[in-house]
Amino acid sequence: MERIKTAIVGASGYTGMELLRLLLVHPQVELVAATSRQEAGKPIHAVFPRFRHAPAAELAFIEPDPDAIAATGAKVAFLALPHGVAAEIARALLERGLKVIDLSADFRLRDAAVYAEFYGHEHPAPDLLSQAVYGLPEVRAEEIAKSDLIASPGCYPTSIILPLVPLLAEKLIDPATIVANSYSGVSGAGRKADISLLFVECNESVRAYGLPKHRHLSEIEQELTLAAGEQVTITFLPHLMPVTAGIHTTTTAKLAPGIDPEAVGRSLEAAYARSAFVRVLGRGGYPDTKNVTRTNFIDIGWQYDARTGRVILLSAEDNLGKGAGGQAVQSFNHMFGLEETAGLQNF
Amino acid sequence: MERIKTAIVGASGYTGMELLRLLLVHPQVELVAATSRQEAGKPIHAVFPRFRHAPAAELAFIEPDPDAIAATGAKVAFLALPHGVAAEIARALLERGLKVIDLSADFRLRDAAVYAEFYGHEHPAPDLLSQAVYGLPEVRAEEIAKSDLIASPGCYPTSIILPLVPLLAEKLIDPATIVANSYSGVSGAGRKADISLLFVECNESVRAYGLPKHRHLSEIEQELTLAAGEQVTITFLPHLMPVTAGIHTTTTAKLAPGIDPEAVGRSLEAAYARSAFVRVLGRGGYPDTKNVTRTNFIDIGWQYDARTGRVILLSAEDNLGKGAGGQAVQSFNHMFGLEETAGLQNF
Amino acid sequence: MERIKTAIVGASGYTGMELLRLLLVHPQVELVAATSRQEAGKPIHAVFPRFRHAPAAELAFIEPDPDAIAATGAKVAFLALPHGVAAEIARALLERGLKVIDLSADFRLRDAAVYAEFYGHEHPAPDLLSQAVYGLPEVRAEEIAKSDLIASPGCYPTSIILPLVPLLAEKLIDPATIVANSYSGVSGAGRKADISLLFVECNESVRAYGLPKHRHLSEIEQELTLAAGEQVTITFLPHLMPVTAGIHTTTTAKLAPGIDPEAVGRSLEAAYARSAFVRVLGRGGYPDTKNVTRTNFIDIGWQYDARTGRVILLSAEDNLGKGAGGQAVQSFNHMFGLEETAGLQNF
Amino acid sequence: MERIKTAIVGASGYTGMELLRLLLVHPQVELVAATSRQEAGKPIHAVFPRFRHAPAAELAFIEPDPDAIAATGAKVAFLALPHGVAAEIARALLERGLKVIDLSADFRLRDAAVYAEFYGHEHPAPDLLSQAVYGLPEVRAEEIAKSDLIASPGCYPTSIILPLVPLLAEKLIDPATIVANSYSGVSGAGRKADISLLFVECNESVRAYGLPKHRHLSEIEQELTLAAGEQVTITFLPHLMPVTAGIHTTTTAKLAPGIDPEAVGRSLEAAYARSAFVRVLGRGGYPDTKNVTRTNFIDIGWQYDARTGRVILLSAEDNLGKGAGGQAVQSFNHMFGLEETAGLQNF
Repeated sequence: MERIKTAIVGASGYTGMELLRLLLVHPQVELVAATSRQEAGKPIHAVFPRFRHAPAAELAFIEPDPDAIAATGAKVAFLALPHGVAAEIARALLERGLKVIDLSADFRLRDAAVYAEFYGHEHPAPDLLSQAVYGLPEVRAEEIAKSDLIASPGCYPTSIILPLVPLLAEKLIDPATIVANSYSGVSGAGRKADISLLFVECNESVRAYGLPKHRHLSEIEQELTLAAGEQVTITFLPHLMPVTAGIHTTTTAKLAPGIDPEAVGRSLEAAYARSAFVRVLGRGGYPDTKNVTRTNFIDIGWQYDARTGRVILLSAEDNLGKGAGGQAVQSFNHMFGLEETAGLQNF
Repeated sequence: MERIKTAIVGASGYTGMELLRLLLVHPQVELVAATSRQEAGKPIHAVFPRFRHAPAAELAFIEPDPDAIAATGAKVAFLALPHGVAAEIARALLERGLKVIDLSADFRLRDAAVYAEFYGHEHPAPDLLSQAVYGLPEVRAEEIAKSDLIASPGCYPTSIILPLVPLLAEKLIDPATIVANSYSGVSGAGRKADISLLFVECNESVRAYGLPKHRHLSEIEQELTLAAGEQVTITFLPHLMPVTAGIHTTTTAKLAPGIDPEAVGRSLEAAYARSAFVRVLGRGGYPDTKNVTRTNFIDIGWQYDARTGRVILLSAEDNLGKGAGGQAVQSFNHMFGLEETAGLQNF
Repeated sequence: MERIKTAIVGASGYTGMELLRLLLVHPQVELVAATSRQEAGKPIHAVFPRFRHAPAAELAFIEPDPDAIAATGAKVAFLALPHGVAAEIARALLERGLKVIDLSADFRLRDAAVYAEFYGHEHPAPDLLSQAVYGLPEVRAEEIAKSDLIASPGCYPTSIILPLVPLLAEKLIDPATIVANSYSGVSGAGRKADISLLFVECNESVRAYGLPKHRHLSEIEQELTLAAGEQVTITFLPHLMPVTAGIHTTTTAKLAPGIDPEAVGRSLEAAYARSAFVRVLGRGGYPDTKNVTRTNFIDIGWQYDARTGRVILLSAEDNLGKGAGGQAVQSFNHMFGLEETAGLQNF
Repeated sequence: MERIKTAIVGASGYTGMELLRLLLVHPQVELVAATSRQEAGKPIHAVFPRFRHAPAAELAFIEPDPDAIAATGAKVAFLALPHGVAAEIARALLERGLKVIDLSADFRLRDAAVYAEFYGHEHPAPDLLSQAVYGLPEVRAEEIAKSDLIASPGCYPTSIILPLVPLLAEKLIDPATIVANSYSGVSGAGRKADISLLFVECNESVRAYGLPKHRHLSEIEQELTLAAGEQVTITFLPHLMPVTAGIHTTTTAKLAPGIDPEAVGRSLEAAYARSAFVRVLGRGGYPDTKNVTRTNFIDIGWQYDARTGRVILLSAEDNLGKGAGGQAVQSFNHMFGLEETAGLQNF
């Protein structure tokens, strides 16, 4: 089978690095372009020495010019760009016949007004929103397979949405009582020269940030609302912790009246029984970020606090993996009719 | 002024190490005994090379024999022993005229039945419970000053109780909606040869544990109930994170009906305006464990989530400091009429 | 092509874990047995949750019984056992027709007397020494391909030997002046319940150990002596540093009289021009452990200190990868006529 | 006794932060000025929340204007500024009658030509060099006590010079064979927004840098040459390791002909028998950075490698403590006739 010519736009940050890591050795991919304004002209391995000796790591970064990208013969482009910037290049690439998998927030929300509320500026391409699919393969694999524009979910949202969706769909919990506590590794903050992200500032340090209305709330609540069939508004508490990669989320919600707590476990098992990348650990199972880093897995455990009537959901994923690059590749596999696990079966 | 002759019983774990660190240089303390079954006969600095050159670090560990301890002339003993073991030696030392500051759980609960429920065995000295004072100096400094038996609080409880007490006392929040998410450094798990505590198992790892009914819930709810004047039952979610020391707790609760959110800030400021060791950071302030490690401070910030009506309380402390050894020394200072900050003003 | 039936003996330590990680997804391997006295009866994923969802992770650990291992049809066994223990089971497996790749020290030394000197007991199987091949594929790929018994090198030795061998062979440096300074991640110390390996003891800590005559010196000097054609004795300085995986070695030696320093670079380039896993970074190149962890690469840079006439060699590898499991799989690939990089091309 | 009015110039970097940490609670110090161009106007605790509740942390940073500093009544100024910048302000403060303790490299070298060679520009104040004293209190406490201008040593140099000076003075080792391998925590690289110092770039990473002619070589060799009474030129190998603070140095050198190896231990013991801050651990002792962080101690161990005739010296210090701020305060204590340990006795 011929390999699929693939481009990565904005490949010099941590999400771009993870996409490179996966796509450089994906058996059905031929990487034909990697863009970076800052690193244009340098071979990939000069910016990321880790990839030296990978066949395509000799490829030089180019400027993010849509015509130049299209000229490489790329059939698909992954965009790892800041929100606001991604929409414009997505449109240009779609017009040139490429499929687009956007890892920014630009196409995640169905409602441009919500975008404006949470991101503080008008949506840059509201006409494209209706054709974008929110790329959670566990929830809408078929839509993803048919779409040309995927909005790959954020890292926190993935860790919060996947455990909650089946419970909300079956009305096992009270949506008004959801509190999600997330701890993210520092790579989630990006590869930027910022004092607050220095080793000395992050090491031996844990702190919350972005309270009380983090941008990711918008997509989280959109997806939870769809699952619940009613408006869901939650409290979301992001924190930074001293690991390179990994997100751990602990979500609590009241069990709905009259529900058997064991229904929680049955619901999670049923929802993800055939999922390649969701590992349900069962009641009393404790996900640990060290078991999912550098993979596309999300591990989910749960418990019931009978004293207070609360369900406790625990989830762990790699913020760069299932939370970003891995999940985007998973959508790519669906879009091109490949095995869902192609290029993602590393441990 | 003559220095107070002081003993540390069980000084070879991490809490004992922190007590040594503080008491070896406390200006009003003369360390006369440090016990450890395992290290008996060795000088302190041989077990903890960090303390080499401290005047009293030449002192050799002795067996935890009450008569031997009393024979040193000690007026007070800090107990850093496992629960169940502490009660017995506490009694023996009290009988020999020493004051006792116990850092185990043995005297923290007023009700022996609650102890039995949470600790899984009968209370070893129920007759002593009534004379013990739960050693939170910010809440009951006067009682501490008059007591001979202090039950120094647990690490998690301190980080949860201090932010909540003023709000509950003023009925600013709904007690039925409290969820406390805590992340602790690995030293909180103790100095024991256990595979799960190895560097490789904890580094780049975050995980929950002890759900849903961690033992510390018993003292947390006792103190919150006292503050609220009504029974309080909460969900408590402990996690392990890869730092040596530090606890970060994020607590949420619904604002009570009709309350102005700013009342939260006013309440915290008023409660701790004269506290040497509680630093209220205000609305939008983010406590960071790196600012409190190796100190006796607890930093408290807060925020209000208007979308859901929840108050968010953030606190950070050193689990070995304000969460254990530091707080015990603070009580000691009250018991002996010293400056509250004596021996604790390091940054 | 049929997959090669493969066993791992002693699979519950960190080296065993890395072998599992590689062999569970090696395209030409069928894992048929994994042994562990301690974990016998449990499926692999119960001991290592990271491997959950890997096809063979349902396999249960068995006791390390040679007949039971042979009965699985295994054609080859990797031994990740303590030295002294490995030799006995190696013999039993060889007698049953399996090839053996031993990751212990038992077959690394050609001279049983040297073994006795460094390991403190008589060699357990001196008659087998002559048929074992020291498994450095960059140095003796052809011998490895023909052998049934591979002694896979130690982690430190690999990082020291590979940079030095070409320089000694060409007599570019003075063998009497070699000093090798190595820093290893904590996984190198093994998965054992030992206070000194706790997170709190290793985090924010760096220390030397095992001076002045670490056991690995024996195989290092054996191989350097072979390369140099004369007896080589070096100073080797192992240290522990707070990372999970990775070894960084800095080796110095005097440039031989009359040699152009650039000959060092030419020699390294020539020696490893066609090596899949040795990445020569050139003069002024700085290997970084973070670029090689979880791979089979060793990165080598060098510099010349004209002020003192010393060559500086820098190397970085993963102690569990090129330093243990990865290198063993590389030898396996040679033994079975596979691509050298099979199952090892991850980044 | 009246407190000594003290200024810190350049107090917003990591060295400045450590000076603040020490001087805010030094019993004989009154901090009257802290300067920072970047943070001028903000109180100290707003920049460093760790210092909140310290009495002087309400002080606001001011611009580094010599007249303004002098106007505070400061008797002494600590300079934590980049080299090249420090000299100018040092002169201005000396002219205004302040004593100066400079933590930059500007006054460490006796020879302006060596400065130009290593620092790449002409010395900014060559006329002041003769009045400056290289501030190693263990070597020249008396000169320090009488001087108005102290050049406080660099972090690496302290860890290398102190173990070597007595051995060179007694001619126990061959100066031509010295190789010093140092590993520093990331705070040594400063508090600057640089991609290479991000948490993600430093965590789980070890790498060399600055080879083969790091600037610190100039002061190291100056001091070793003085001790040896002959020109000493060494190889110095700096590395970065993933800890916040701490330097570990392993130095090797050939034992001089005819010398008993035990003379090494006797020499170290004799040299530092009365030193408050040098802890000699003896033969086989392993310094560990975790035992010295946040203190002014340097721990020194040693070993003899009889197989190669090399002496191995091991040392550990806090790069910000004995390697910077602590040592500067130690000199300050000598300059003002205080106890050498004043303000430095923390563990």
